[in-house]
Amino acid sequence: MILIREAKPGDEKDIFSMIKELALYEKEPDEVVNNEQELCNHLFHEKICHAIVAEKKNEIIGFALYYMSYSTWKGHCLYLEDFYVKENARQQGVGSKLYNAVIDIAKLKKVRRMDWQVLDWNKPAIDFYVKHSAELDGQWINGRLNFKY
Amino acid sequence: MILIREAKPGDEKDIFSMIKELALYEKEPDEVVNNEQELCNHLFHEKICHAIVAEKKNEIIGFALYYMSYSTWKGHCLYLEDFYVKENARQQGVGSKLYNAVIDIAKLKKVRRMDWQVLDWNKPAIDFYVKHSAELDGQWINGRLNFKY
Repeated sequence: MILIREAKPGDEKDIFSMIKELALYEKEPDEVVNNEQELCNHLFHEKICHAIVAEKKNEIIGFALYYMSYSTWKGHCLYLEDFYVKENARQQGVGSKLYNAVIDIAKLKKVRRMDWQVLDWNKPAIDFYVKHSAELDGQWINGRLNFKY
Repeated sequence: MILIREAKPGDEKDIFSMIKELALYEKEPDEVVNNEQELCNHLFHEKICHAIVAEKKNEIIGFALYYMSYSTWKGHCLYLEDFYVKENARQQGVGSKLYNAVIDIAKLKKVRRMDWQVLDWNKPAIDFYVKHSAELDGQWINGRLNFKY
């Protein structure tokens, strides 16, 4: 049995551990300057982002983290920032359950679009999105400026 | 003299007109389902996004629209959603003034990263960002789901 539920205080440890796993898979482990305590603050105190987790036998095996974003073309949107299932918990439909739960939240919040990004070499993830009938568009380049204080 | 200032109620007419100009330039005019009144609400009542405008002789000639976003790797971020200078006002440094003003806001808000996207065929914009030492990364694909109610 896989349970999808809203993240609650205390989950930040498991979620942050998966954020680091995903960053490593995406070959950018050194880009993570966030930490468990800040994530806890962002999720449960400032509430600038939100997360749901997948649980099996009381163990967290996946998560999706999102925030409310904006489009000048669409208005209110939802940005799916991270979406991850632990390696040993794959091929059991956990990803689909998490993804569909985020879509349900997006519809509940009446956003006009849900957005995310996937690396162009991440074939398993791209296959997942194609299977789930998502629109994929490779013609946008990301611009970025990093700030240190 | 070019003045950069925070957008105020009433500016939504000019800003929305430029949003449509930019969408046309980006070959997606039909994707705009937002409208002036909703934009006014988003900017000045809900305050889910923010804008600055460039003014010359009391005429608005450009704008930048942004919102506070989030990164699991960085924490608080700023997303530059739209950034535009009217065609007849280009080559006067208006873009640099707007861009630098957004960077100042990002630093004031202590965000760790500022993000945006640029179309891979938009050479003038890409040249601008390269000239301004921004990091450009073309390895991410945009995933999208549109919702209609």
